[in-house]
Amino acid sequence: MHRLSSPVAHALIPVAALIGIAFALYQWYLVSKIKVSVDNQTHENGNGNVNGENGTHEMEEGVDGLDVRKKCAEIQEAVSIEYKYLGYFMNAFAVVLFLFLGSVHNFSTHKKPCAYDESKLCHSPVANAVFSCIAFILGALTSVLSGYLGMKIATYANARTTLEAQKGVGPAFIVAYRSGAVMGFLLASLALLVLYIAINVFKLYFHDDWEGLYDSITGYGLGGSSVALFGRVGGGIYTKAADVGADLVGKVERNIPEDDPRNPAVIADNVGDNVGDIAGMGSDLFGSYAESSCAALFVASISSFGINHEFPAMMYPLLISSMGIIVCLITTLFVTDFQKLTTIKDIGPALKNQILISTVLMTGGVALVTFVTLPVHFTLFDFGREKHVKNWPVKDVANSCKTGAATNVIFGLALGYKSVIIPIFAIAVAIYVGFALAAMYGIALAALGMLSTIATGLSIDAYGPISDNAGGIAEMAGMPHNVRETTDALDAAGNTTAAIGKGFAIGSAALVSLALFGAYVSRVGLDTVNVLNKKVIIGLLVGAMLPYWFSALTMKSVGSAALKMVEEVRRQFNEIPGLMEGTAKPDYATCVKISTDASIKKMIAPGALVMVTPLITGTFFGTETLAGLLAGALVSGVQVAISASNSGGAWDNAKKYIEAGASEHARLLGPKGSEAHKAAVIGDTIGDPLKDTSGPSLNILIKLMAVESLVFAPFFKI
Amino acid sequence: MHRLSSPVAHALIPVAALIGIAFALYQWYLVSKIKVSVDNQTHENGNGNVNGENGTHEMEEGVDGLDVRKKCAEIQEAVSIEYKYLGYFMNAFAVVLFLFLGSVHNFSTHKKPCAYDESKLCHSPVANAVFSCIAFILGALTSVLSGYLGMKIATYANARTTLEAQKGVGPAFIVAYRSGAVMGFLLASLALLVLYIAINVFKLYFHDDWEGLYDSITGYGLGGSSVALFGRVGGGIYTKAADVGADLVGKVERNIPEDDPRNPAVIADNVGDNVGDIAGMGSDLFGSYAESSCAALFVASISSFGINHEFPAMMYPLLISSMGIIVCLITTLFVTDFQKLTTIKDIGPALKNQILISTVLMTGGVALVTFVTLPVHFTLFDFGREKHVKNWPVKDVANSCKTGAATNVIFGLALGYKSVIIPIFAIAVAIYVGFALAAMYGIALAALGMLSTIATGLSIDAYGPISDNAGGIAEMAGMPHNVRETTDALDAAGNTTAAIGKGFAIGSAALVSLALFGAYVSRVGLDTVNVLNKKVIIGLLVGAMLPYWFSALTMKSVGSAALKMVEEVRRQFNEIPGLMEGTAKPDYATCVKISTDASIKKMIAPGALVMVTPLITGTFFGTETLAGLLAGALVSGVQVAISASNSGGAWDNAKKYIEAGASEHARLLGPKGSEAHKAAVIGDTIGDPLKDTSGPSLNILIKLMAVESLVFAPFFKI
Repeated sequence: MHRLSSPVAHALIPVAALIGIAFALYQWYLVSKIKVSVDNQTHENGNGNVNGENGTHEMEEGVDGLDVRKKCAEIQEAVSIEYKYLGYFMNAFAVVLFLFLGSVHNFSTHKKPCAYDESKLCHSPVANAVFSCIAFILGALTSVLSGYLGMKIATYANARTTLEAQKGVGPAFIVAYRSGAVMGFLLASLALLVLYIAINVFKLYFHDDWEGLYDSITGYGLGGSSVALFGRVGGGIYTKAADVGADLVGKVERNIPEDDPRNPAVIADNVGDNVGDIAGMGSDLFGSYAESSCAALFVASISSFGINHEFPAMMYPLLISSMGIIVCLITTLFVTDFQKLTTIKDIGPALKNQILISTVLMTGGVALVTFVTLPVHFTLFDFGREKHVKNWPVKDVANSCKTGAATNVIFGLALGYKSVIIPIFAIAVAIYVGFALAAMYGIALAALGMLSTIATGLSIDAYGPISDNAGGIAEMAGMPHNVRETTDALDAAGNTTAAIGKGFAIGSAALVSLALFGAYVSRVGLDTVNVLNKKVIIGLLVGAMLPYWFSALTMKSVGSAALKMVEEVRRQFNEIPGLMEGTAKPDYATCVKISTDASIKKMIAPGALVMVTPLITGTFFGTETLAGLLAGALVSGVQVAISASNSGGAWDNAKKYIEAGASEHARLLGPKGSEAHKAAVIGDTIGDPLKDTSGPSLNILIKLMAVESLVFAPFFKI
Repeated sequence: MHRLSSPVAHALIPVAALIGIAFALYQWYLVSKIKVSVDNQTHENGNGNVNGENGTHEMEEGVDGLDVRKKCAEIQEAVSIEYKYLGYFMNAFAVVLFLFLGSVHNFSTHKKPCAYDESKLCHSPVANAVFSCIAFILGALTSVLSGYLGMKIATYANARTTLEAQKGVGPAFIVAYRSGAVMGFLLASLALLVLYIAINVFKLYFHDDWEGLYDSITGYGLGGSSVALFGRVGGGIYTKAADVGADLVGKVERNIPEDDPRNPAVIADNVGDNVGDIAGMGSDLFGSYAESSCAALFVASISSFGINHEFPAMMYPLLISSMGIIVCLITTLFVTDFQKLTTIKDIGPALKNQILISTVLMTGGVALVTFVTLPVHFTLFDFGREKHVKNWPVKDVANSCKTGAATNVIFGLALGYKSVIIPIFAIAVAIYVGFALAAMYGIALAALGMLSTIATGLSIDAYGPISDNAGGIAEMAGMPHNVRETTDALDAAGNTTAAIGKGFAIGSAALVSLALFGAYVSRVGLDTVNVLNKKVIIGLLVGAMLPYWFSALTMKSVGSAALKMVEEVRRQFNEIPGLMEGTAKPDYATCVKISTDASIKKMIAPGALVMVTPLITGTFFGTETLAGLLAGALVSGVQVAISASNSGGAWDNAKKYIEAGASEHARLLGPKGSEAHKAAVIGDTIGDPLKDTSGPSLNILIKLMAVESLVFAPFFKI
């Protein structure tokens, strides 16, 4: 029926993953060729008074002294504490997972009739519980590893980008972009490779029990998203506490510039940028990637090719991801090797081209993979106990996958218009088309299509913060103005494509959650989720309220953490003599500790809300209420996420507008330090956590609740 | 089967309505006994420099001069312009309504098979169209009349409350409360009487075609809600443009107190308070009241007592409302006659007692009405083409009605906690209980139960703005401080119960919309509204976005109107010599004109969004998409409405906190005019329209879209 033999399909996936890893390591090698002199002399003069006349050697020392040594150590410290608590949580949750899933038939280890074909025997609930736990831990570890490597390479790249910025725009851009690519390709390849290995190892036990196999493998998505909860919420609290503390005291009260080394919170702020922007975004997208793969695999497992054991067709989602890695690799070469960037103006179009090239190539790639992998006729499970048998031309599946890729571009661009209207219509169209083509499988594939070019997406995303931090280092090391100008321009060019990153995150979260919601509904055996049912309508209403509750909790967390930071920074300015004059050094470590502690303690309440709500609802109020809750959280969460990022962005822009002083009106309001500017800075301190903590965390809320419901579905069903 | 004969039921409703009207007129008579000297001498000295040594006569002149003549004229002017455009709109929409509904069978005037019993013949679509238009216009006229009389009596009462405040707390409270009661009882009684008369006149034509009768009568709810759209959106823009304009220039830039007569926007601001708070709230609640009655009647018309022509049972919703008027009448006597209020401390508890007494009495009243009216066994239509036949003990119906009354109190109190969480749980519980007891009829009755004590609710609501305006008059007339203190205390006591008013508005909007949604789904013949259907899910998603779009439009309208007002007020301060010194008079009329024009022009975009969206969705995307859209708008709109009122309230409180200077922290931030205070005032200018325009308008959004969909259902169905 299909054109690709099993052994070839088997081979293609790990080969693509290994090519991706090799490519990432090669990019890392290229970045590492830029030498930063390693000098152990303590850097005592990082207070911004160093003039621009320094020689290159001294500057490198400055860069090295301030950046690599201090910041790496602080990141190491912060991250190891975070990881310690993350470890505790993961172990505890794995135990909960085992107890819930194992208890389904009183921890019986006997085989039981399958859920979708009761004439056959499937593996015991205890086996499912054990393998779900393993998948969960694998997902968590892969996410942690990707995030950790991402932060490492970002820190490693910051100083090198600063140094290359002395040579010009082109070299600096290449370093920053290559560094982003290291993270992008490592993440995409590791995610694929681990999932592939897990499926094949699990299959040794499950044999032809596809249902049990893919039930268990969804734990991989849950693990990935749980880490994302830490990354987005914890990381968000960390970075915003530091940022708000540094800005309110430094910029507003003391009138010293951003990134000034006299500010005690400056290191915490820099560390936070790496934790929040790089690791947070990475773990978020890893979660979406893992979940959309799991959702597609799950829906496929209960289709005809799952029941008929057609291995290449079952591996279709992973083959799409493999194709994505190859496509992104070729795309990357366009900007790093095939063309030469020399001016600032080239950067924006070059980044946009990356997105376009990857989308166009992927469209062809999807068609190819679909043509060689899928049987010409197959049956999908379309809710309801009796399975509707339909013949789906292969073309439709390919098209629903392409829908996602196209939506990514449209959604990203629409987000740039600072409105909730167009993005929602873009998502609505994607859902409609995906669904019309191949039911819930279409939604899962649209999500996968959106995420298949994740390597390029993450390269662009990570490139922004790397350039931004490079600018910070230039400021702290007192380098000539043109260096800072170059890094600022790099950062600004990245901002025009940053919407694509948000599009990736929010749009994929919406599609993935819907696919997981569909899988959950199938798994618990609901025929319909009827709004006219009292359980569903109150589920919808309460679910729609959760994003507000969650946002209120995260904002409160950032607020109280920031207050502590403000007090500490004020205390240091008041009590350390000579700090403002630059003759004494601030106590950076205490500020880092405040952020680290806050990010652990203050994420408990919002984290618990996300993790516990589906469990309580499913256990005590039934599967229909939970279905309503998930749908409500989905439709409301997307809106709140988009509008949080919009209104946060609006405040940010108001501040930048006054600071830039480009129009007469702006000059009337300005200059920096004027009353209007101070008001704008205060507005920005509310908008900032809304945009960078609450908004992105909502992606996790809607995905994590959906995947958790799917994983725990066998328990709720009894 | 039932204990109440038709003629008695017939008589009880108009009698109760007439008692209500007589009671309202008696209250008005009592208020009018307080004499304000009518003196035609022009009041030239209203600039706040009049000292407190004036004799009573002079003060009365001041009160009269500034208030009654000028303000009444301006209100008359503003309102007549608003009503002119309202009239145009209503006529145009009535034509649209006729064309849509009439075209169902190509304007055929022949009888057609009924929707729920195809063996019988019902009246032609053209007949339905004509009577729907009549009902629509009746609803609009009743709403306009109630709002107009409310504004009249409020303006009339303001000055009298100020005068009575000289005598003490007790007399002032009684005047303000009686005036509120005039509006409350007039509105409740007129709404009931007109609806009763309309049903009986329509019945002369429709005879035993209950389906056609109640299909047409829903136009009454649509008419009421359309006026509410003007009241809430137009009124909200009017009042906030004036308020923001007056505050930003007067308080922030010129440092003159609130309500200072030197401020050119002060009259517009005062007019706006009457238009927005009194007429807006009144038309909003009238809409809910009319719609919940229509929804209950509609659901009843397709139940067994509709089909069996049991008149008392069919009149059950109206009998509940009649009982509500009598209950509220007795409740009012408790505070105006049975007890004597002498100190400020008594007022808060007295108002709370009003709510408690009316709720307790109503609980008994509902039981009585239910017992004598409903048959012991009857059948409700519970979605799906085959009607599920169930025996509902009468007790359940009474309980679902009582649920609403209890929820009103709980919801109102929960709103006071400034959180979206508890109110949503309160609504969710009410929906669950109402639905469990009597399906969609239970929801409609819960809404009706919530609104049955509307007369008392409106008395309390109107009392606040009346006291507030009385304070403004005292300020403008330069009366002694203790007068202003008394009116401020009256206003403050009202604020503690203001949450009940919001509870009425938001909570009833949610329940009413759900009931209308259920009626719509029955009317278009959908069995289920399945979230797994692609049309429903995109409807949900887009519907959940509408409150954001609508809020963005209203905020933009207020913003641009306020900007015009600010420019005009600035211009007058700059160009009119002697204005700040109080030797020249400002040009109040131009400011009133700006507000009036803005309230007409700027409401077009948000108004069109609400009115056109259901028509387009139903016509081009089908009834399922529209069902999803309504459900999405409902679950998301309630959240946005509550959080808009919360965050607006938070900013308001921050400002008041600084102004009061009660704690050390507050004194550190203050005094008035400090940077922190200015920032708080700016925050409040964003929060204010959010709280007073966008938030309350969202009630209209969710109700109006639902009732419009129900009325146009026959058109969408073809």
